[in-house]
Amino acid sequence: MKKKKLILVTNDDGIHAKGLKALAETVKPFGRVVVVAPACPQSGMSHAITVVKPIEIEKVEEEEDFVSYKCYGTPVDCVKIALNQLLGQKPDLLVSGINHGSNSSSSVFYSGTMGAAIEGCINDVPSIGFSLLDLHPDADFSASQYSASRIISKVLANGLPKSICLNVNVPPVSKSEIAGIKIARQTKGLWKEEFDKRTDTLGRDYYWLTGNFHNDEPDARDTDEWALKNNYVSVVPLRVDMTCYNTLDLIKNWEL
Amino acid sequence: MKKKKLILVTNDDGIHAKGLKALAETVKPFGRVVVVAPACPQSGMSHAITVVKPIEIEKVEEEEDFVSYKCYGTPVDCVKIALNQLLGQKPDLLVSGINHGSNSSSSVFYSGTMGAAIEGCINDVPSIGFSLLDLHPDADFSASQYSASRIISKVLANGLPKSICLNVNVPPVSKSEIAGIKIARQTKGLWKEEFDKRTDTLGRDYYWLTGNFHNDEPDARDTDEWALKNNYVSVVPLRVDMTCYNTLDLIKNWEL
Repeated sequence: MKKKKLILVTNDDGIHAKGLKALAETVKPFGRVVVVAPACPQSGMSHAITVVKPIEIEKVEEEEDFVSYKCYGTPVDCVKIALNQLLGQKPDLLVSGINHGSNSSSSVFYSGTMGAAIEGCINDVPSIGFSLLDLHPDADFSASQYSASRIISKVLANGLPKSICLNVNVPPVSKSEIAGIKIARQTKGLWKEEFDKRTDTLGRDYYWLTGNFHNDEPDARDTDEWALKNNYVSVVPLRVDMTCYNTLDLIKNWEL
Repeated sequence: MKKKKLILVTNDDGIHAKGLKALAETVKPFGRVVVVAPACPQSGMSHAITVVKPIEIEKVEEEEDFVSYKCYGTPVDCVKIALNQLLGQKPDLLVSGINHGSNSSSSVFYSGTMGAAIEGCINDVPSIGFSLLDLHPDADFSASQYSASRIISKVLANGLPKSICLNVNVPPVSKSEIAGIKIARQTKGLWKEEFDKRTDTLGRDYYWLTGNFHNDEPDARDTDEWALKNNYVSVVPLRVDMTCYNTLDLIKNWEL
């Protein structure tokens, strides 16, 4: 009998998020599933790790070919603890999400969902982050599950090149309205912050972070933002080597 | 009279770190300096942002052409607040560090120092992160200051290409032992964790993160790790576009 695949599932919205449950259900037909997810919401935690305090783990659920743990740490802590303590062997796949909210364009840098996927990739595990462009706790994940299932079966069949992981975003539309799946590049864009400044009861200033995403290249048709605006699921392959090779010679000419 | 350059300084070790003071002193000859640094140590915070609570800011020091603030947030929060609330204009340069400890190879992903530099870069500010391979709170930053000064003067003179920032690491040797400054690529490598498992007073398991860096390509001579091992200061240009362009066609062939 062929050995069942081992699949690690995590996220940044935490163990109770609907998107995590949706992703765990999506991968169950593919093999044995281990969920290690943050006990508390970790949105915006990026690739953060816990270095000044210990990390506690508790088992939440166990049934045939399925076990889940909550971890009092960041998404990347979850991946590190899973790979080094809980799994006992390297998983065949890591999936992270399904995030409640977009992680397209430069949002990939702030995303705990993608932090976890990148950590899997650094550890040579084929890794995919999934995000739905809907922040609602009760968002409808059926189109995301359908797309995720297609992408996961291709990754399990073909593998991923070393040091490459996938950033998948899904538009907030029903399954029948999805135009298709588009391989895209990361859009050049950024969040323009408009901090909301307030004063506390002792007269001290404090700020709430708010803002809007600004697309620097709204007309470019090969980007993840364009795909999502046009109801496509976007798939961006990310490298964990951040070196800009084109710039090496330029800087060598500075004669430092 | 030529207008003075405006230079933003931040770090992840916090407002009281020796490395921050060393960096602020290094940039003072180049222009007006504004320090916005975390009130509390933020090592390992990567590109994290504070999304579920507000951020408080306090002015710490003010003299001619110098002002410093502490920010109860992450390094990236410091940059966002500085750019949007405190500076009043786009700075000519952002410098982050000097970190107490290495941020070479894949450590760039965990680093709050580099998170801040990448955030500056996303916002189109020439940005450099500096790290010294010495974790000691009282480390000797004189070689780092000398190298930083050379690199900063080149960046102010030449600028940096859009969407590129620099990751500078300095070996833990005296100024006279520095072999030179080497433009390098990010080493392929990772932290191999060996969690220290303990049991608390209530019988629950908890884990301390420990580990050692593993270099996947110790003999490659064009990497930051090789440079540092051979007493060179390493300078890696990083792209904020993480797309792996070489992989786009491969994945298009999957016919998702």
